[in-house]
This record gives sequence, structure tokens and C-alpha cells, in this order.
Amino acid sequence: MSSFTLFVAADDDRREVIEIVAAAAGVALVVKAGETCPGAEGFGPAMGGVPVISTAQGPIARTVPILQYLAGVHAHSALHGDCLYTDAVVDQWLQVFLADIAPNLRILQDVAPDGTVAEGSAVAQAARGKPVAPKAGLALRSRAEAATAAVFAALAARLETHSCLVTERITLADIAVASQLLPLLESGAMPSVAPAIARWALACAHHAAFVAVRGAPTEAAVNRIMSAASAVAPAAPAAAAAAAAAASGAGAPAAASAAASAAAPAATGLTNSGSVSAGALSAPPAFATRWSRGRARASEVLTAGAAIIGQTVTVGGWVRSARKQSGLAFIDVSDGSTMAKLQFVVKEGIADADSIAAVAKVGTGACVRGTGKVVATRDGKSVELECTSLSVMGDIPDPSKYPVAKARLSMEALREHQHLRPRTNALAAVTRVRNACAFATHRFFQERGFLYIHTPIITSADCEGAGEMFSVTTMMPADPKGPIPRTEDGSIDYSKDFFGNPAGLTVSGQLQVESFACSMSDVYTFGPTFRAENSHTSRHLSEFWMIEPEIAFAGLEEDMSLAEDYLKYCTAYVLEHCAADIEFFDQRVEKGLRDRLQNVVNEDFVRLSYTDAIEILCRPEVLKKAKFSIKPSWGMDMRSEHERYLTDVMFKKPVIVNNYPKDIKAFYMRANDDGRTVQAMDVLVPRIGELMGGSVREERLDVLEKRMEEMDVPKDNMQWYLDLRRFGTVPHAGFGLGFERLVMYVTGMENIRDVIPFPRYPGHADV
Amino acid sequence: MSSFTLFVAADDDRREVIEIVAAAAGVALVVKAGETCPGAEGFGPAMGGVPVISTAQGPIARTVPILQYLAGVHAHSALHGDCLYTDAVVDQWLQVFLADIAPNLRILQDVAPDGTVAEGSAVAQAARGKPVAPKAGLALRSRAEAATAAVFAALAARLETHSCLVTERITLADIAVASQLLPLLESGAMPSVAPAIARWALACAHHAAFVAVRGAPTEAAVNRIMSAASAVAPAAPAAAAAAAAAASGAGAPAAASAAASAAAPAATGLTNSGSVSAGALSAPPAFATRWSRGRARASEVLTAGAAIIGQTVTVGGWVRSARKQSGLAFIDVSDGSTMAKLQFVVKEGIADADSIAAVAKVGTGACVRGTGKVVATRDGKSVELECTSLSVMGDIPDPSKYPVAKARLSMEALREHQHLRPRTNALAAVTRVRNACAFATHRFFQERGFLYIHTPIITSADCEGAGEMFSVTTMMPADPKGPIPRTEDGSIDYSKDFFGNPAGLTVSGQLQVESFACSMSDVYTFGPTFRAENSHTSRHLSEFWMIEPEIAFAGLEEDMSLAEDYLKYCTAYVLEHCAADIEFFDQRVEKGLRDRLQNVVNEDFVRLSYTDAIEILCRPEVLKKAKFSIKPSWGMDMRSEHERYLTDVMFKKPVIVNNYPKDIKAFYMRANDDGRTVQAMDVLVPRIGELMGGSVREERLDVLEKRMEEMDVPKDNMQWYLDLRRFGTVPHAGFGLGFERLVMYVTGMENIRDVIPFPRYPGHADV
Repeated sequence: MSSFTLFVAADDDRREVIEIVAAAAGVALVVKAGETCPGAEGFGPAMGGVPVISTAQGPIARTVPILQYLAGVHAHSALHGDCLYTDAVVDQWLQVFLADIAPNLRILQDVAPDGTVAEGSAVAQAARGKPVAPKAGLALRSRAEAATAAVFAALAARLETHSCLVTERITLADIAVASQLLPLLESGAMPSVAPAIARWALACAHHAAFVAVRGAPTEAAVNRIMSAASAVAPAAPAAAAAAAAAASGAGAPAAASAAASAAAPAATGLTNSGSVSAGALSAPPAFATRWSRGRARASEVLTAGAAIIGQTVTVGGWVRSARKQSGLAFIDVSDGSTMAKLQFVVKEGIADADSIAAVAKVGTGACVRGTGKVVATRDGKSVELECTSLSVMGDIPDPSKYPVAKARLSMEALREHQHLRPRTNALAAVTRVRNACAFATHRFFQERGFLYIHTPIITSADCEGAGEMFSVTTMMPADPKGPIPRTEDGSIDYSKDFFGNPAGLTVSGQLQVESFACSMSDVYTFGPTFRAENSHTSRHLSEFWMIEPEIAFAGLEEDMSLAEDYLKYCTAYVLEHCAADIEFFDQRVEKGLRDRLQNVVNEDFVRLSYTDAIEILCRPEVLKKAKFSIKPSWGMDMRSEHERYLTDVMFKKPVIVNNYPKDIKAFYMRANDDGRTVQAMDVLVPRIGELMGGSVREERLDVLEKRMEEMDVPKDNMQWYLDLRRFGTVPHAGFGLGFERLVMYVTGMENIRDVIPFPRYPGHADV
Repeated sequence: MSSFTLFVAADDDRREVIEIVAAAAGVALVVKAGETCPGAEGFGPAMGGVPVISTAQGPIARTVPILQYLAGVHAHSALHGDCLYTDAVVDQWLQVFLADIAPNLRILQDVAPDGTVAEGSAVAQAARGKPVAPKAGLALRSRAEAATAAVFAALAARLETHSCLVTERITLADIAVASQLLPLLESGAMPSVAPAIARWALACAHHAAFVAVRGAPTEAAVNRIMSAASAVAPAAPAAAAAAAAAASGAGAPAAASAAASAAAPAATGLTNSGSVSAGALSAPPAFATRWSRGRARASEVLTAGAAIIGQTVTVGGWVRSARKQSGLAFIDVSDGSTMAKLQFVVKEGIADADSIAAVAKVGTGACVRGTGKVVATRDGKSVELECTSLSVMGDIPDPSKYPVAKARLSMEALREHQHLRPRTNALAAVTRVRNACAFATHRFFQERGFLYIHTPIITSADCEGAGEMFSVTTMMPADPKGPIPRTEDGSIDYSKDFFGNPAGLTVSGQLQVESFACSMSDVYTFGPTFRAENSHTSRHLSEFWMIEPEIAFAGLEEDMSLAEDYLKYCTAYVLEHCAADIEFFDQRVEKGLRDRLQNVVNEDFVRLSYTDAIEILCRPEVLKKAKFSIKPSWGMDMRSEHERYLTDVMFKKPVIVNNYPKDIKAFYMRANDDGRTVQAMDVLVPRIGELMGGSVREERLDVLEKRMEEMDVPKDNMQWYLDLRRFGTVPHAGFGLGFERLVMYVTGMENIRDVIPFPRYPGHADV
């Protein structure tokens, strides 16, 4: 959890809204009331004591920037709008309630409806000790009421037809506005309010973030809000509501549909949102969207929580467990969107589910869709769905035959049911984390201006030795007894093959992507690669995905820094976006996983030359302590035990070993002047070992040609590669990592076959 | 270009900053001064006449939300910070200058340094016609100066060490602050100012967006700013500057390096930014970054433009053309980051480039790296690099042998040099657009909560017929004369093959991804697929990339809407992010391209049943007009000429034809009750034809099995697929599109071999 310090004047009531937003965003806040933040002089006291938070990057002053920042710390906090426009509408509400009408709200709070001015209040202080006559107080108050009337009208109209202020879920706008209004309503300072505002304010008061900061609302406070609501005539007509909704942030089509559905407001809400998730990405392109999901995701319902209590939503998913109890059925449903299950509560005799017994019978694995009201769970900590209808879309006719019915099947057993295993907790969590790693990879490189290049899968060029390549051919006969074309001398006649030459599946896109680095500067690949090794270990696959960035005008330092930043980025991204999944892996798969990952994000990686690494490993005290099975010596390829010593014992953080002996590295790596090392680097990570490997590429034509000759690399097929050195050569570098290794590293999963949807290894390519 | 209407009071001076931001963001703004925006009552006049813009989605009121919105309309406008923290610092400056100290700035403008109050000013109006004594004016002014002193000190300290207010490029903060300060400085209302502020204000005044709205600054205005700067003692000491930089938004490490480099402030700036691009994505994970590029990209220099005039930067790239002229060499350099070239101006005798003749000799294709000062081009419209050093990293020893030297090679000729062709304008533009399409695809699905699934490349299952599959094998003998394992009866012995069975390269990931839709709900694939067709057309490849989303609990309507939204999203994304590339294609490849694409974004797609489509095509007047070579009739697979008639002649926009005859569609498509059609759909696009195809999947086990029998689809290998219907089946749908078709569609390129880095087709898999 990220942590920040808030500096705020002792009596500053903006403290509360900042604390609530921090709670909603899952950010820890240390409050230093009455202290000032060093380094923020230009924005603090000189402006009359504004709130300031200090962050690792520096201070931020003023309420709105602070709220926006806190809301953004974790992308999943989803406190912003869902597009550029709704973001702006959120901003608009913040501006109006935290700045523009704040002084008038202050007056409504300080001056009672009868004109009495609260002692010690700003109004009283402004009178410098002289008593303020109730008549003067009343005048002040009525000016404040007039100044805020239009805003309250817009607020009421919006909330007549929508569950929240801007989108259909709690945003910064709801928190900011409710934090200003709740004290007014709960204290009776605002004795009448539109029922829609009261309903929404109550939902906010029960929201976890509000409860965390202000405590649960008291019965008296709830009663006062309710009576304020009953003091006014209900509901604006639909047309006015729609107009006001348009004014307050619903999109034009949404406003129209809001008007259309005004007769059944409970049916609006999450159900038809098809919404863009979280604030993970700003400003998607603007166009009129037509897709809607027709159902809410379990993750959306559980995240919105108390904010949507009372709303009607539809959720579909697969039953994880079901039980029957005194006329009710309780069904835990998962739709893959989150580790948590949403509980359906089903009463006897509702449509489509005519007996509890029938419902309870659907059992694990059945597919159901339920519509109902979101209600609080008994402990008040979460919400569940009180179904008004339930459809069984797909049942399990014979539960004994459902292969993944049991609660805890071994990973080996699940591997026999690859098409069903994502219905289990572990594989679903892997799927979400793998997805997050993939998107984090694209985001990382795209944010830095790299271009994604699709290097070829079928190729006649080979990077690291043809022995490991799968052949790709169209010469295998359709009739298994048929012949394979041969020339007169009995050789296989590849001129008859599809590509006119022997072709195989790529083992790396590096050589090809270099040609794009030598024209577009900064590029990366992310695609499948193959090894025809007859390997049955838990760390090898025949088909796996690789990521290979390549940067021009760069040397070893840049390459190491890029690798370090990339790994930290992906790790931090997963910690942020898959917190519940990482929690699961931490508990069930690898104790201490989260700490291990946080260590990678927090620590500067050690950079150590191979020569120094060997020197360290050969120190007598190290040899004594480590008891290596193979004694390290200069020139050897380091074994895992050596790498582990460096990362797990010696430094306790990631280590980048660099400048390896040339004889244990590939032909294309750039030679150092010492004549015996090349500019290669491997990133070693505690508990995992090597995760990435890279190098500077030999950019000098003559040196490269000589090295190819020394290492017997045939040059005939490689003229195109030499061309890159022949014409406008450039220093460049890159690295590669196996994507599945990355997923193993972030999940703690121990067998590589369990982190890819359909693993391929000797004898296995069935599905 | 997007367009919005601004409603603002006739005398509201916030109009200018809004117009400047719109210009900087490339957004067209129609100004209606003195009018009010309908539908924004709650936020407009009641608040005293705030600015309002109307957008397609609704109105937005108040200056800061409006600026944020305009800045975000085009993600490439890069007007925000480069991370969550700098975003907050931008917000902070907006808040301070547009709200908090705005009244004091107003006073500095209205009351002259000698205390004279301007006629008609707010101060004069507040006195209700009574003259304000200079003494009272002076008191007002000195209060305003005191109230703003700390802010100006922070501003000066920041600008001592940085070129811009928040990051090293122009953001909203610079525009907002400069728009408030420039009138004060140019009018002499602020007779002294820190030199760093003056320098920066001048750079802003020359920025294209300011010039577009305010005109170029006059000589008198420039002189007044310069003399204000010389009225104060120069420069704060480095320590104070660093402290203040920390206060005003530089990250802690940046502040330290700023202090370290205070002795050579000109060396800071873009050069070492390694910065996160644009506002394309908000809030990347927070960690201490170590990677820096050591060079600026040409796109960054050209985009920053006037804002970084005078800064020293390093740029590397490849020479597109070079010429010599009276002691100078002019070299146009491209680094792949943008269509535009950055011009290097090199003087005789600089380090590393001892004679102009030598520099001019490097010629097209050479790789150079230059360091120098950013200066305005002669026409003042752009910037160029005045080199103080130039290194030739890689030359072209014999220009006559450089294969892509000529200005305009045919696409066919370039195809012979796949490794060098991205150095040409056309292929570089394709590379950027292809990258944008790929990332837009991921963003689209990720924003909507879809999970990215890697379906297998090697498979024993086949979706649409094994005849088109490449075999994948390890049985081809290393010795070409060697045998291939056969069983006793002469059949090829696949039990000896790597996977123990015949295996091939996938033709589609759909069947496999369905298993994830039936557990994780909303998923998509994006990976390579293969066809072993001996096809030599300009529209077929043997290896191509496909995108296949699959959604659970969904029917044909949702599927069509998802396809429509997806295509619009990608198109809008490319229009926004690759504007210069699309301009190039519009001019050189397909006239009217941009309009064609904009039409797709703007129009609701027509949805038409196959039966209705055939009915339309068979109308006598259509047959007469269209002169089809084949007369359409119900049951046939529509030909391009028929599809083209619907999209290009009849509707002039995209058309989704749906509910096709079952006999021309695949076995897995869901049967309609009419017994003769299935829930399939094809998206047809003007000038292109079919771009996407999809369907609802048959979710009923018995119906699916019967259909497989009817169509002779063997069930043995498909039991896993039937399991998805056997256990908790769910209605689901999806579609697929060939990624290269998408790139052809957005670029107008006519041969599919030119939109993929290394095309594979019969006889070609060399590189």
C-alpha cells in the first residue's frame, strides 16, 4: 500500500474529504495537522494555509490536485470518469463544491435556519466579537441559499435518474460533493433536500471509505437525512430530469435513455453500462459507442459495493458452490472478472427457478444468470445479489462427470483438462495476471515511444542453431502412405516445398527486429517462439512467447537500465492491478510472494561484471559458506547455484551480471577491447534466477564477419543481416525474456505448463 | 479535427487561455461571446458567468475542466504531465494562477506601478465612479505584490533550471501561467521579473499556439519583457534553485541532477528525458526509473518546437538527403519517430566533422548523431538543429550499392529489401500505423475488461479444414537423403514425431479461445495464424495476424455492436495518433483516405439481414444500374461486386450483413429457428469489402453434434470443444479480423505484402 503524509491546518475541514478519497483509493495517509510541509512554501502558507501532501517525487499543494493524485495512485481505484468527457464533469463538480460554492456551504453550516450564528464560526469571527443579530444571520443565509439553488437543482435532477453523480459508480465527484453535504444534512443545518439527493447521500455515508474515516452514520443522522428528504415534494418530471442530466454529465444518448427509463429508474445503473474500466487509460478516442454488455461483471458489483445498494443489476457466471437453507438458496458465482465470488440469494418460487431444490441442484459448474437488487451482506462488509429472477443457462447433467468439480485438484490433474481449468481459482488468477503482464508490456514500451514489430514466425534464417527448430512443410503426404518428393539423388526436394527451401519455426525475432531498430530506432517484439528440444522439465515449453526490445544509439548501460525499468514496471503494474490475485498466490502458492515482488520494485538492481562476480564467488569465505557443487572459475557459464548465491545470499536483490566471456555467448554480441569479453548482460532475480538476457550488438562489419567465421556461422543466408552493418550502421542493443518465465516470476507458479493457456511439450499438442 | 463551441461572457479574459490551449491541442473552437450554453444552467449564470463548452456528449463548465478536456481530446497533444505526480503539479499551477492569485494578478494589471487605476477596470468599478487616489491604488498594488511574491519566487526558481514549468516540455501549466503573465509583462504592468521567467515567457509568446491566438509578439512587447528581466539581479544560487525546484514539481532525483547541472543549465532539457510520451496513458506504475535515451527523438524536438529554442539536444538518425551551400551543410535526418525530417545545420570545422565536403559526402542512408542548439527555421514555422558536433556512426562506402537510395522505388522493388525498406517514407509510415493499430486493439479490449489470451500456434485441432494447414514436424531428416520414419505398412509413423501425432500451424484461435470465454466471460486473441494456400494474390499471406474476441452471455446484437465499436476505435485512434502518416497516405496512396476513415468513425453502421440484402440486390432498378457479372440469389455467397454495391453505392457507409444461409457458413454457428439461416455477420466497409466476420456460437450440445454430423466434422478430436456445451454451457459470440486487412484499410496500401514486416507467401520465407 502506498503511503503519503498530509500537512493541513489543525482546523481545516478539507482534511476529511482528502482522507475519504485516500480510503476509497486504498492509499494510506499519515496526517500531520498544524505542521507545514518543507519545500512547498510557494504554494502553502503564502496562500493562506492550503493542504499539502508529500510524495516520494515531491510535494503537491491544494485540495483538487491532491484528490486527483490520490485517486490515480492505484489505477484500479476507478475514481475518475470513464472517458475524457466524464473526467471533465468530475472536475467540474470538484471545482463547484470544493471552491466556488464552498463559502456559501460554510455559511449554511454556521448560520442556523433561524439565523443564529454558531459561536467561534467564521461568520462570528468576521464580526470580531460583536454578536450577529438573527436578522443579519437570516439575510446571510438566504443569500447563500440563493447562490446555491441552481447547483442543488442540477444535483437533484442528475440523481433522479442515476445512481451516482457522473458515471454509474462512485467517483471523486461523489466523494467530494457528499463530504461537503453530509455534515449539513446530518446536523440539520439543511432541513430540506430533494429525496434523490438524500438517497444518494445515505449511500455515500455507508460507503466503506466514508465509514473508514467518519464512522458509520448514526441512527439520528440517518433520521435527520430522511426527514430532510420528506420535507420536499418528490421527483422532477422526466423531461426536466433529462435536461438536467444532460447538464450534469450524462452523455446525450444516456440522457435520452434516462428519460425513456424514468418510469423504472431502478432498472438503470450498472446493468447496461458496458463501461470503460477504471482510470487505467485516459482519453480513449471519441465516437458514439453501441456495445453494451447487458450484464454487470461481478468485479464491478463488488467494487462499487455500498454505492449501488438498492440498484437492480444482472450478473452471469458459473456456480462455484451452492447451498440450501430454510427456503433460500445461496449460490456463489464467478464470472472470471475477479477472485472474489458474488453471492446470489434466491428465494423459493421466483421466475425461472421454481424450487429451491432445483436451484440447489444446479451445483458447481452450472452457468447461471441472475437479476436482482444489490443488498448488503449480513456483516455489512460487502454486497450480494437478492435475485428476482434466475436463469440456468447451462446445467451439469451428471455432476460426477464434471472434471473440475472438486475443490482442490492438483495442477497435474488440471493439465488434463486445459479447456476447463480456467474455471478454477488458480488458473483464473494466472489468466488475469498473464493478461496484466502482457498489457503492461505493451504500455511500458508504447509510453516510451517504442514501435511494436511483428517478426516472422516461419523463417529460413536461424538465430541460435538449426537443431532446435521445428520444420514447417507442406510435403507431408495427405495419404500417410504417400511419398515425399525427392530429387534424383534421393535428397528431399525442398524446391517442391511451399517456400522452395527448408523452413522452420522461429527461435527468436531478434535478428529481424534489429533491421527495424536500424531504421525506426526503438522497437520491440512480442510473439511466439519455438524450441524443438525434447525437454520434459518444469521450465521448458516447445512453444512460448518472447519479448525482445531493441534500441538504437544505445550501449550496455542503457540496455541494463531499460531491462530494469521494464521489470519494475510490469511488477508494479501487477501489484496494482491484480492485488487480490497476488494475495491468493501469496497464501496458496508462495509465501512471501508480495514482499519478493515489492523488493524488485523498490531496489536498485546491482550491476556486476562477470569477472567481479566470479571473483566474489571464489572468495574463500564464500566457497566455505556456499558449498557449491561446482567451483566457479572464470570462463564457465555460471550455474544456478552461483547465480542464486549472488541474488539470494549476497545482495538479496536483483543483480545484472555483465561483460561475459565471449566464448559462452552468441556471435552477434559486441566485442570489448580486452579481446576476451563481450557486452552481454543477464538479469538475475532472487528465488528465480535468470529472467532476461541481452547484449550490445556488434555493429562493426569487419569484426562481425570475423566472429562469424570463428564461430562457423554460415554467412550466405545472413547477407541481409550484414547489410545493416554495411549501410549506415548504428550502435544498438537489446534483450529478450521469455514471457512465461515472467508470469512464473510474478505468480510464484512452479511449472511453466500452468502459466500458458495450452502448453506444448513433447507429445502434447492436442487442443 | 474535432470542433467545440465555447460560450463565454463578452469581456471574460479567460477566453484567451482557452483559445490558446485549443490551438496547442489542435482542436477547433467556435467562440460564441455573450451567449449562454443551453443545458448548463446549473453551472453557468448562477455562478456568475463561467465559460462553458458544448461537446457531443454534453456541456462542460469552468475553465480548468475545460482546459483539461481540450488538452485530452487528442492524446498526442501531450499537454499533461508525464506521470501521475507531474499531472498533479500541472493541476496545482492551474489552480494557483487561474483561481487563487487571479484576483491579485487582475489588480497588478489594473493598477499601474504608480498607483493610477485604469478607467473601467474592476477596481475602478468597485469604487462606484469615485476616483481612487493613487495612494489607495499603491496600497492595493503592494498587497497584491506581497500576496504573489512567494509564487513568483517558486516560478523563477523552477525556470532557472528547467525549460518548462512541470516537465521539460510545454504543458497546460505553461500555457495557463504564461497566458496570465504575458499581458502583465508586455504592457509594462509588471516592470521587473526574474530573467528566467522572462526567457520562458518569451519562448511561450513565440509558441505556435500563442501566435495563432494572440499573433506574434511585437518588437515593443519583446523589448518590454527584456527590460523587465534586466531590472532584477540575475539567478538564484544553485542550492536555492534546487530546493525551489523540489517545491515546484521536479522529482527528487531530477532536483538533485538539476542542482548538479546548474553550472551548465543549457545541457539539461529534452536530451536526457527518456520520457513517457504524451498523455496517451495515465498514471504508469510508480518506481524510480533508470533508463534514459541520451538523445531526443526527432518527433519530440519538432513537436516541442519554439518551446525549446535555445536548448541543447542530441538527435541520432539516418540521412535522407544532404546538401552543401556556402560553408554550411544541411542534412535532413529521420529516426523513424515521425514522417517529418529534422534538419541538421553543420558549419565548417566543428568537432568530428572537419570539412563540409566530408559531411555532404555521407549522403542518403548514413547514420549520424548530432548535438547542437535548437533554432528556429528561417520561415519561423519549425525548428532545426544547429550542430556543435556531428558524428558519422555509419557511412555508405559506395552509395551506388545502397539498395534504397533512390527517392521513389516501387513497392515491388522494395519488397526485395525487406530489411532496409523501413528506411523509406512509405514503409516507415506503415510501421507506425501498424503499431498504432496493434496498441489500439489492446487498449480497446483492455479498457473494456477483456482478457488477452494466447491461443496455441501448433495444434492438432483444426478449425476450418486441414487442407490449408502447414505441417509442423521434427521428422524431416537432418541429412536430406535420410529416411522419414514409417510404420511397417509404409505409413508415416507420427508416433515418432515430436507431438506423437500429426500437428500443424493454427488457422484460427477461435475454438480454443471459446474455452476461455466459457470461464472468464470476455476475452480476445491477437496472434499469428497460417494458411498453406498456394495463393499469389495481393490480399493473401501464408502467415498473418488475427484478432478474435469472444464474449459470453451475448448474442448477435452485442457481437455486431462490439465489432462496430472496435473498428471505430481503431480508426479514430489512428486518425489521432498518426495524423501526419495518414496525411502522407492520403496524398500519395489513396486520395480521400482521411474522409473515408472519418466516415467510418462518424456513421452508424447499417445492419441488414442477408435475406434483405439479396432482396435489395435483386430489385430490377439495382440490377439495371449495377450490371453484376453474377446475378445475386438467395443461398449464394455474396461476391465483392454485390458487397461493394451495398457499401459504396447504396448506403455509402459500413454495412453489417447478418443471418446468413447455414450452408455457406461454419458448423459452429448458431442455428436460427427458421431452419435455414445461422446467426452470422460480416462487416463490409466501403472501398474495402469484408473486414470482419463473426457469429453467435451454437451453445446447444444436441444441435451442435447434429450439425457436425451433417457437415462431416469429425468429433473425436473435438470432445474438449463439446465439453464446453456439456458442462455449464453459455450463449456466446465473437468475431475475427485479419490484422493486415485492418492495416490495409487504414493506410490505403493495396498489397498485403507491404503492410507486414516480413511477408510470407509461396516461395518466400527468406529473412
